[in-house]
Amino acid sequence: MRELEFIRYITRRFKIKRPVVKGIGDDCAVIKYKKNKFLLFTCDMIIEGTHFTKKTHAFEIGWKAMAVNISDIASMGGIPKYALVAAAVPRGKNIRFLKEIIRGIEKISKKFNISIIGGDTNNSEKIVLNVTLIGEAEKKHLTKRDGAKPGDLIFVTGALGEGKSKHLNFLPRLRESRILVKNFKINSMIDLSDGLAMDLNRLARASNVGACVYKSLIPLSKKSEPLEKSIFAGEDFELLFTASIAESKKIMKRMGKKEDLPITLIGEIVKRPLGVGLIEDNGKLTPLKPKGYAHF
Amino acid sequence: MRELEFIRYITRRFKIKRPVVKGIGDDCAVIKYKKNKFLLFTCDMIIEGTHFTKKTHAFEIGWKAMAVNISDIASMGGIPKYALVAAAVPRGKNIRFLKEIIRGIEKISKKFNISIIGGDTNNSEKIVLNVTLIGEAEKKHLTKRDGAKPGDLIFVTGALGEGKSKHLNFLPRLRESRILVKNFKINSMIDLSDGLAMDLNRLARASNVGACVYKSLIPLSKKSEPLEKSIFAGEDFELLFTASIAESKKIMKRMGKKEDLPITLIGEIVKRPLGVGLIEDNGKLTPLKPKGYAHF
Repeated sequence: MRELEFIRYITRRFKIKRPVVKGIGDDCAVIKYKKNKFLLFTCDMIIEGTHFTKKTHAFEIGWKAMAVNISDIASMGGIPKYALVAAAVPRGKNIRFLKEIIRGIEKISKKFNISIIGGDTNNSEKIVLNVTLIGEAEKKHLTKRDGAKPGDLIFVTGALGEGKSKHLNFLPRLRESRILVKNFKINSMIDLSDGLAMDLNRLARASNVGACVYKSLIPLSKKSEPLEKSIFAGEDFELLFTASIAESKKIMKRMGKKEDLPITLIGEIVKRPLGVGLIEDNGKLTPLKPKGYAHF
Repeated sequence: MRELEFIRYITRRFKIKRPVVKGIGDDCAVIKYKKNKFLLFTCDMIIEGTHFTKKTHAFEIGWKAMAVNISDIASMGGIPKYALVAAAVPRGKNIRFLKEIIRGIEKISKKFNISIIGGDTNNSEKIVLNVTLIGEAEKKHLTKRDGAKPGDLIFVTGALGEGKSKHLNFLPRLRESRILVKNFKINSMIDLSDGLAMDLNRLARASNVGACVYKSLIPLSKKSEPLEKSIFAGEDFELLFTASIAESKKIMKRMGKKEDLPITLIGEIVKRPLGVGLIEDNGKLTPLKPKGYAHF
């Protein structure tokens, strides 16, 4: 069973009750909280052999476990607040190693003003870290992946295809997310954990729309993999979002004035029957399949 | 590093900020929520080879992953509400197996009226399930492990030493917890995940008190291990709680009238310098060391 299938299977099985605003199927679950605020919940598990190797520095394991969750909160327009950390490490793993994992968790938690409020420790053959992150989002700023509309322009933060070089020490795009949701009307947003191809398809399916991205517009850096790979490469943890043309103009105006918003226009949302496609340099449209980094 | 040491290390490192009512060091973290309610958070990870074996039925793996968390919410006097499930299974594990895990999670979630609101799927060599459970507790009913007072009587639910036979399909003591907190003033409560010896010491340390339990009062059943083992055996998931003598009288009166509260008086809380001890049949006091089922 592939991950997408599995998630669909689970989504069908577990019916969502009030006051759950959004259950399975977005980056975070959303629950009613205060008059003007929602609570956001997300959890991500990282595992030796899948998300890092035996040789990965312990500090980076801790950093990454928290960073991927912050990225989920950022993709909903929220602010991370509290975390639960469950760690399993091999029996007899030395104390310095564990302390280094904690130092990594601590460092990024301080940076983003997150309190660790609980946890669980276990032993296992391979290292497993599960972080549950609890955040808040003002009702007016909550941004889901299902709000894209035909005519919206599509943007990404940063450069794609850098995952390989930065997935262990990346800085989640929380600052950028907050600038966006506080200053503009963002119709939909998702973080790129499994590559542009996969995550754009997720956003399009959730919003019941199609999407076209221009190959020539995809931002790459010196650290990126080649373009063909960068489109499918996972663990970029950049934000992919859409806004109406009117809002997009405001966003681009702001981009011109200040340098705090490293974003690039890459395409536009179209009607569902047009599907999700990549426009080649010669103008030809190729379907962009939801393949990429799958966990199963 | 042993688990206790590790948790103490983490507790010192992560300073708790407001509005966190209770951070690391109890069964759940507690956060301010509504005027009369707290939110409770807990997460527990269960791992193949540590909490179940390669041969464990998938349904029971799912059941247990949720049950241990419900037990944590019960031990604080709360009600479970929402869950996030992170699952990692070996690549190529068959679909039926996964569906059986989900069926186990689903069955117990329905029984306790819990909504699954999110999750994460991964692959790993060994099966890992992490459940984060979110609950609520009325402010007046929240029961922590640090409220025991000298003179309190100590009770446990059910029988001890049954963990081996029931740890995969036990029914968390939520009903009993709610009867207790709604009808009586319970000074402190903890669930027995690592055995009476370990968890009574945790409760005593948190409350800054000592405790005496009478060996002859410890409830055993046909399914229990021998007494000596039952005191140290983990995964009973019974509730251990204390109440003043006046409240205890009311509790015992109720016990006599209705059969819905299977609890047993096992000892009393004493002053800290007296330590935590076991009173043998001949009246001799033996120190009860915090040893038992440790995860490291």
